[in-house]
Amino acid sequence: MDQPGSGYFDAAAGLPLHPVAAEAMRAAWQDGWADPSRLTGAGRRSAVLLDAARQAAAAELGVRPDELTFLPSGVQALQQGVLGSLAGRRRAGTGLLHSAVEHSAVFQAADWHARHGGEVQLAGVDGTGRVRLAEFVELAGRPGVATAVLQAANHEVGTRQPVAEAAARLAELGVALVVDAGHDLVYGSAPATAPIFTADARLWGGPAGVGLLVVRQGTRWRPPFPVDEAEAGRAVGPANVPAIVAAVASLRATRADRAAEGRRLAGLVDLIRQQVPVTVPDTVVLGEDDPAGRLPQLVTFSCLYLDGEALLTELDRRGFAVSSGSSCTSDALTPSHVLVAMGALTSGNIRISLHPGVRQADVERFLAVLPEAVAGVRAQAPGSPAARPLGSPTQAPGSPAEATPAERTLDSRGRRCPLPVLDLARALPGIEVGAELTVLADDPAAASDLAAWCRMRGQQLIEQTELDGGASAYRVRRLR
Amino acid sequence: MDQPGSGYFDAAAGLPLHPVAAEAMRAAWQDGWADPSRLTGAGRRSAVLLDAARQAAAAELGVRPDELTFLPSGVQALQQGVLGSLAGRRRAGTGLLHSAVEHSAVFQAADWHARHGGEVQLAGVDGTGRVRLAEFVELAGRPGVATAVLQAANHEVGTRQPVAEAAARLAELGVALVVDAGHDLVYGSAPATAPIFTADARLWGGPAGVGLLVVRQGTRWRPPFPVDEAEAGRAVGPANVPAIVAAVASLRATRADRAAEGRRLAGLVDLIRQQVPVTVPDTVVLGEDDPAGRLPQLVTFSCLYLDGEALLTELDRRGFAVSSGSSCTSDALTPSHVLVAMGALTSGNIRISLHPGVRQADVERFLAVLPEAVAGVRAQAPGSPAARPLGSPTQAPGSPAEATPAERTLDSRGRRCPLPVLDLARALPGIEVGAELTVLADDPAAASDLAAWCRMRGQQLIEQTELDGGASAYRVRRLR
Repeated sequence: MDQPGSGYFDAAAGLPLHPVAAEAMRAAWQDGWADPSRLTGAGRRSAVLLDAARQAAAAELGVRPDELTFLPSGVQALQQGVLGSLAGRRRAGTGLLHSAVEHSAVFQAADWHARHGGEVQLAGVDGTGRVRLAEFVELAGRPGVATAVLQAANHEVGTRQPVAEAAARLAELGVALVVDAGHDLVYGSAPATAPIFTADARLWGGPAGVGLLVVRQGTRWRPPFPVDEAEAGRAVGPANVPAIVAAVASLRATRADRAAEGRRLAGLVDLIRQQVPVTVPDTVVLGEDDPAGRLPQLVTFSCLYLDGEALLTELDRRGFAVSSGSSCTSDALTPSHVLVAMGALTSGNIRISLHPGVRQADVERFLAVLPEAVAGVRAQAPGSPAARPLGSPTQAPGSPAEATPAERTLDSRGRRCPLPVLDLARALPGIEVGAELTVLADDPAAASDLAAWCRMRGQQLIEQTELDGGASAYRVRRLR
Repeated sequence: MDQPGSGYFDAAAGLPLHPVAAEAMRAAWQDGWADPSRLTGAGRRSAVLLDAARQAAAAELGVRPDELTFLPSGVQALQQGVLGSLAGRRRAGTGLLHSAVEHSAVFQAADWHARHGGEVQLAGVDGTGRVRLAEFVELAGRPGVATAVLQAANHEVGTRQPVAEAAARLAELGVALVVDAGHDLVYGSAPATAPIFTADARLWGGPAGVGLLVVRQGTRWRPPFPVDEAEAGRAVGPANVPAIVAAVASLRATRADRAAEGRRLAGLVDLIRQQVPVTVPDTVVLGEDDPAGRLPQLVTFSCLYLDGEALLTELDRRGFAVSSGSSCTSDALTPSHVLVAMGALTSGNIRISLHPGVRQADVERFLAVLPEAVAGVRAQAPGSPAARPLGSPTQAPGSPAEATPAERTLDSRGRRCPLPVLDLARALPGIEVGAELTVLADDPAAASDLAAWCRMRGQQLIEQTELDGGASAYRVRRLR
C-alpha cells in the first residue's frame, strides 16, 4: 500500500484500502463469507452483516435502506441506474439526455441504448466544464425524453454541476434525473433530491467490487439486465458481503471527518492552483475558479507544448502518481471528451486528486519538482521532426518550420499533439501582425488544441476546413 | 469462518475463504489495489499481479490467457457467456437452447433474451437429471438456433452431463455450446472442448466477486451489455485484482490435490447414499447412481411426507448446514425446476455438498442425527389441519381425512406440500385395491410430488385435470 506521505496524487482513480476497511473486511471474511440469502447459520450471519451495512450506508446518504442496492462496481451502478431508468420509463419515451462531460460509462450506456433503438442527446458545457442549465432543461423538456444524466462534479476538472437545480426543473418536466454522485460524495454531500444516484466505493478507500445504486421511493426503475433474487431482485449473484461491509465502514470513517479534511485538501489544491501557473510557463488551470463551485480535492492543469502522458511518466519516475485527461498518445488516439467539450487544451493535461494521506510537504515537494519535470519533457519535444512548409517536401527533418508570406501553410499532418500546436507557436511570430497562416493537421486533438492555444494567446482561429483523408486546414490570423 | 470439522455441508453455495486465498488477498491488497490500466507505478504493480493470475488460471484450465475474462461473479459470467454468444452469432439466428435443469441464471438470461425478441427452447432430462442427448442435438439442429447451454454437472443432484459429446455434435451443426463448468471444475476437469465455459470462484474457496468466462479462440462472442476498456473490452469497471489473485491462488491450491480429495469426498458421499435410505424410512436418493456419472462431492435425497425447509431448519439447529432444492414453503411457492424436470419428489429434498474441511467423523455425526431429525419433523406434520373430504366442509380441522366408497375425493386445496402427498398416503389404504380416489390440490408442487409418490409406491396416477382457480384434480388408482 502506498504510505501516507507518498506522492500518490491519483485518488480519483481509486485509493489503497482504508485501514478501517481493511479491518472490517478481515472481520467480515470470518462471519460474512456465506450467501446472505441462505437459510443456514452462516447465511444468517452474512445477512445480519449486510443489513447492518445497508442501514449504516443509507443513513450516511440520507436515504431509506430499501432504496439502496449494492452492485459489483460504480460503473455497473451508473450504467444500470441510467438504463434501468429508461427501462422503467418506456411509456415516457426512449430519449436519453446527458451532459457532454459525463464519465465514459455514461457514453457507453448511451451507445448501448442507441444500438437498441433509443435516442441520445448531449447537452453542452461552458468553458469551466459546467453544463449549460437552460440548454439542459430545454433538451430534457423535448418530447420523448425519459431520463437525463448529470454528474455531481466533473471527474476530470472538478467543476460541480447544478444537480439540485436540474433535479427540481426535471421533476417539473416529469423527466428522471440520474446523478453520478461519485467524487463529491467523499467530502461533499449526497444529491438527496435526485431520484437516482450512484457511487463507487473505491473513491473513499473501500475495496473494489462495490458500487452503490440509490433509487428513491416512487421512482420508476427496473433492472435493465437479467437479475436473480439478490438485492431484492435488483442484482445478480450473491451480495459480496465482506466487500460491502468494508466499503460502508470506510465511507463512514472518511465522511466523519469530511468538513475538516475537505478544508485541508482545498488548501493544498489552492496552493497548486496558485503556484503552477507562476512557476511553470505556458500553463493554464482548468475548470471552475470559485471554491464553492468545484471539488476540494481535485485540480487539473494543462501545459502547452508537451504531451500529458510524457509528463505523467516523468512525474511517476520522480515518485508522483497523477492522471492525464489527454490520451492523444495512447492507442485510442482520442482526446479527452471532457476537455474537448470545454474547448480546453487537451494535450499536456495533468489531473491531481488528493486523499487524506497527502501532507502539505508532499504537495510542496511536487511543486518543487514540477517546473523541472515540465522543462525536461518540453526539451525533448523539439527533437521530433518539425512540420514541412508546403511546397518544400524535401526539406530535411529537424529544420525549423518556415512561413514565407507567399507560402503560409504548415504541414503538420502525421504529427501528434502537442506538435501541431508547437509548429503554430513557432511559425506565427514569423509573419506580420494581421497576416494569416494555415496549419494542416490530422491528429483529432488538433481541433481542440489549436483553438485553445489561439484563445490562450489572443490569436484568432478564423476557420477549420475538413480535407480529404481525415485532416483539416486551420486558418489562423496573427493579432499581436 | 466455519472451522474444518464443522457441519457445513453446503459447499455448493459457497465456501469460507481458503487459507491460501486469504493470504493471497492480504498480499494483493498491498500491491494490487490500483486500477491495473493506470500508467502509474501502483497501476503497473496491479497489472503485473493481474497478468500473473490470468496466466496461472489459464494454465490450470488448459486455455490461453487471452481467452480468459474475469467478471464480478459466476452468474454474470454465465449470463454474459450465453447472451454474448447470441449477440455475436446474430447471423446464425436468435434461437437459444438449454437443458431443463440449468442453473436459474440461465433461465433468467433466457427470459431476458425472449423479452428482447429471441426464441428459447428447453431440452428435457431423464429421471437422473441427465439431458437426453439425442433430443438436445435434434433441437440444436433446428433452424435459427445459434447457441446452446449445458452445465457440466447438475448443481442440485450432481448428475454429470454429456458435455464432450454435446460439444462435438454441436460443433458439427455450427451451434455454439456454452458450458456452466461450475461444480465439476473443483475436483473434475475443465470442459476443454466447449467453445465457451464459465465458473464462480466461490465454489473453490475463492472470494466473492470473481467469475471466470472462457471464450476460446475463433468463437464468436461480443459483450451483451455496455463495456469499457477493462479486460480487453469484455467487462466494465477496473478488474478487482486482489479478489482475482485470491481466487486463482485457491483454484490452484484446491485442484493441486483434486484426485485424492475427490476420492475421499466420493467415499463420504457413498456413505450417505448407502446409509440414508436404510436408516430413514420413505427416503430416496436422487440423480445418477454410477460414480463416474456424478460429482464426487454432492448428494441429494428426498424424504416423503416432510417439508425440506423444515428439515433444513432442524438440521441447522443441530449444527449442520445443508441446502434444499425445494422452495415450496418459501415466498416464491415454486418447486425446484430441476426436480420437476426429473419427475422427482420436490418436497422433503436435502442437498449435501462437501468440502475439504469435512472429516469422516462429521459425516458420521450427521448420519447419526438424521433419522431423529426426520422423525421429529414428520411428527409435527400431522398436527396441521387435514384435507376435507368433499361434501363435509364443516368437519373439524385436525380430524383424519376419510374416503368412503361414495365420496372418494380428498380436498387438499390450500394445503402446501408435503401435505397433499401425506393426505393421499393416508387415504389410499382406506379404499379397495383397484379402486380410484381423486385429490384436489392447488400447491404447484403437488403435480410433481403426487406423481413421484405414486411412482415410488407402485400406485397409478391416472390423470391430472386442471380446475378453475389454479387447482388440479389428480385421479389415483390403488394398485396394491
